[in-house]
Amino acid sequence: MSGTTNALPSHPRFVSLEGGEGAGKTTVLDALRAALREGGDEVVSTREPGGTPLAEMIRGLLLDPSHEPPSADAELLLMFAARAQHVRETILPALERGAWVLCDRFTDSSYAYQGGGRGLDVAWIAELERRVVGLQPGLTLLLDVDVARGRERVRGRDLAPDRIESERDEFFERVRATYRARAAAQPQRFRVIDASRPAAEVAAEAVRQLQAWRAGA
Amino acid sequence: MSGTTNALPSHPRFVSLEGGEGAGKTTVLDALRAALREGGDEVVSTREPGGTPLAEMIRGLLLDPSHEPPSADAELLLMFAARAQHVRETILPALERGAWVLCDRFTDSSYAYQGGGRGLDVAWIAELERRVVGLQPGLTLLLDVDVARGRERVRGRDLAPDRIESERDEFFERVRATYRARAAAQPQRFRVIDASRPAAEVAAEAVRQLQAWRAGA
Repeated sequence: MSGTTNALPSHPRFVSLEGGEGAGKTTVLDALRAALREGGDEVVSTREPGGTPLAEMIRGLLLDPSHEPPSADAELLLMFAARAQHVRETILPALERGAWVLCDRFTDSSYAYQGGGRGLDVAWIAELERRVVGLQPGLTLLLDVDVARGRERVRGRDLAPDRIESERDEFFERVRATYRARAAAQPQRFRVIDASRPAAEVAAEAVRQLQAWRAGA
Repeated sequence: MSGTTNALPSHPRFVSLEGGEGAGKTTVLDALRAALREGGDEVVSTREPGGTPLAEMIRGLLLDPSHEPPSADAELLLMFAARAQHVRETILPALERGAWVLCDRFTDSSYAYQGGGRGLDVAWIAELERRVVGLQPGLTLLLDVDVARGRERVRGRDLAPDRIESERDEFFERVRATYRARAAAQPQRFRVIDASRPAAEVAAEAVRQLQAWRAGA
C-alpha cells in the first residue's frame, strides 16, 4: 500500500489531519493553526473535499443526501476532481509563497473511505493520486479513536448525519484499519495520536508533534 | 487510439450521437427518437454530461462559468464521475430491460474535448473508460461539420455561450480532428455524416444509417 505512494514528492510545510468520525479534528485544527500563527508564518487552513469555490460545490454534491447517492466509482472521481482543483488553486500557490498549509483531510481519506470503506482497488486510487495530485503532506497527524466512541461523540452533536456519516459501524472499522495500516507503513510521515482522551489533551499532543516536526523541517 | 477501446463490450441497442458545436445534434436526436419509437420499442433518450439527477448537477458545475474554471484534470474526472453514474443508474438498467438508449454524447466526447481539445493523455482517458465505464455504444453517429460553419450556427442561436463553447477555434479544430481519427480507426462502430448540409437532409441520413444498423443488429 505504501509502496505506491512513497514516490510522490512531499512538502515540509504541508500538514494534513486525518481521522474517523468523532476524532475531534475541529478542536485540534484550531490549536494547530494558533500554534503555527504564533511563529509569525502565514497559515492557509483548508479542508477536503473543498478548499476552492468549485471544490466546495463538489463537496455539496458528495455530502448532500437529497439526490441519488453516487456509485463508489463516481464518489471516488468526485473526490479526486475536487482534490485536483484544490491542489492547483489553493495548496500549491500557498506552498510556493512560503505559507504553511494545514489541511483537514487529504488523499489518505480516499484510501481510508473509498478504498478501505467501500472496497475500491487501492492500485486505482494510487493511479489517481499519481496522475492528478502528485504531492503528499510532509506530516500527517492521524487522530485514532475506536469506532464506538467516535460515533457516540458524533451523535452527541445533535446534527443530522451527512451521507457518509450514515454508514454502518463495519464501514468505519475498515476506515480505521486502513488509516492505521497506512500510518504503520509510512512512519516517516505519520504521527498517530490517541484521540480517546479529552479534547484538550489530544490538541496539546498534536501541537507538540507539530512543533517537533517544525523544529526538524 | 482505437486499440485501447476495442476490448470494451458494446451493446447493439446503445446508440450515441457525437459532433462539434453547431453540428445539429438536437434536430437529429428528435428524428432518431421518432424513428425508433415508430418501431414500438421503448427508447430512453439521454445526454452527457447528465442523465441522472446527480449527473445533471455535475453538468451544471462543468458548464457554469460563474465559479473558477476546473483544471483540465478536474474537468476530465467530473466528466467520468457523471458518466459512471449515468451508466449505472440509467443506461445499463434501460439496456437490460430491452430498451434502446439514444445518448447525446458519450465517452468519445471525452477523447475529443479533453484529449484532443485540452491535450490530456489518451492512455489516461482509456484507463478511466476501462475502469468506470466498461461499455461502448454499438453505433456512433458522428455529425461532422467544419469548425467555422458550426460556430457560425451556434452564434446564430443568440444564447450566451457556456464555458466550453467559449473556447477558441484551434481547440475545436483539435476536437474535430480527434473525432475523425476515432471514426477512421473504428469503422465498425462509427458512421460519419456530413453535417454541413441542411438540417432536414442531415436528419434523414442519420435515420437511414440507424435503420440500416437496426436491420442488422
